[in-house]
Amino acid sequence: MQPKEVLLVLTDQWADWEASYAISLTNSTPEYTVKTIAINKQPKVSAGGLRTEIDYAVEDYEQFDNLAMVILTGSFTWMEHSYSEIAEFVKKARNSHIPIAAMCGGTVFLGNHGFLDKVKHTGDDLECFQEEPGYNGQDFYTVAQVVADQGIITANETAALEFAREIFRILKIHNDEDMDEWYDEFKHVAVR
Amino acid sequence: MQPKEVLLVLTDQWADWEASYAISLTNSTPEYTVKTIAINKQPKVSAGGLRTEIDYAVEDYEQFDNLAMVILTGSFTWMEHSYSEIAEFVKKARNSHIPIAAMCGGTVFLGNHGFLDKVKHTGDDLECFQEEPGYNGQDFYTVAQVVADQGIITANETAALEFAREIFRILKIHNDEDMDEWYDEFKHVAVR
Repeated sequence: MQPKEVLLVLTDQWADWEASYAISLTNSTPEYTVKTIAINKQPKVSAGGLRTEIDYAVEDYEQFDNLAMVILTGSFTWMEHSYSEIAEFVKKARNSHIPIAAMCGGTVFLGNHGFLDKVKHTGDDLECFQEEPGYNGQDFYTVAQVVADQGIITANETAALEFAREIFRILKIHNDEDMDEWYDEFKHVAVR
Repeated sequence: MQPKEVLLVLTDQWADWEASYAISLTNSTPEYTVKTIAINKQPKVSAGGLRTEIDYAVEDYEQFDNLAMVILTGSFTWMEHSYSEIAEFVKKARNSHIPIAAMCGGTVFLGNHGFLDKVKHTGDDLECFQEEPGYNGQDFYTVAQVVADQGIITANETAALEFAREIFRILKIHNDEDMDEWYDEFKHVAVR
């Protein structure tokens, strides 16, 4: 069986850590293959200096029937550009009922293009979040590290493990018990 | 002033998350620039499927007077190959008193080539560690997430944040207070 694609959207200065846990485990399963996609096919250099090659330009992508998820990696460049071609691609993916996962700057991008009900980000810390499901609409915003609702995952920049866990839930990478074990091992390691 | 280089050694199947926090913050400072180095200049594909370009082949590297640190990113391929050319490069770096940081598979590589006093790894979990400084040599091995001693940092695969913190200490990226704040923000975020 041909593995389904999980597309990682990269921009210049993409944040190395944000999708790192999610893609490494996802790509190691026979069910999925991770590919990179961007506004064009020029390599995109990470915040950490990694010059990473791009598999697809957004305008050329058509294989939505073989697509399992789109992951938008955070970057400060999401705030500096509109990336309307990427928005068009995300719209096509949403029309095909493909789950979208976004972290930090990627969340701001989704909000700017009308994919989220609410996005709030506070100053330099760039706390980016959706309203939690169940929000009562009156009193306050609940600040959550990660929110998964109606096929969209959003997460704060400090929540790489929690972001991965929500992605694994949707892709059914682990059963609940194995997923909790994986999470605990990485989250709660002993610290000297 | 020319920034000093921090070299990230990549092999095929390099683990996306392991050095991700370390390199993204290090490369964002004016004092340092992160470059990739490998056994040859062919792009190296991460566990997560990222095809990453290589700045230097180890045999060509000569600029040890402008080198601040060498980071060996983990990968299962460290156990499948000797990588004697990389060992030769690490030896030159050590002779120039350059700090070496290694995670998981990279730690096994250092042990295999005689750079560590002790390396122990247990079964599939690949727990790779040095003896802690102060080990009494008699009773037990202290399993630590990260160990920094005599210019060598080693870490377990689950300790990306702790690995980054030790690297930042050596590179003097933050003062102690800012470093603790950075660490706490990423380590102890609220979890729903």
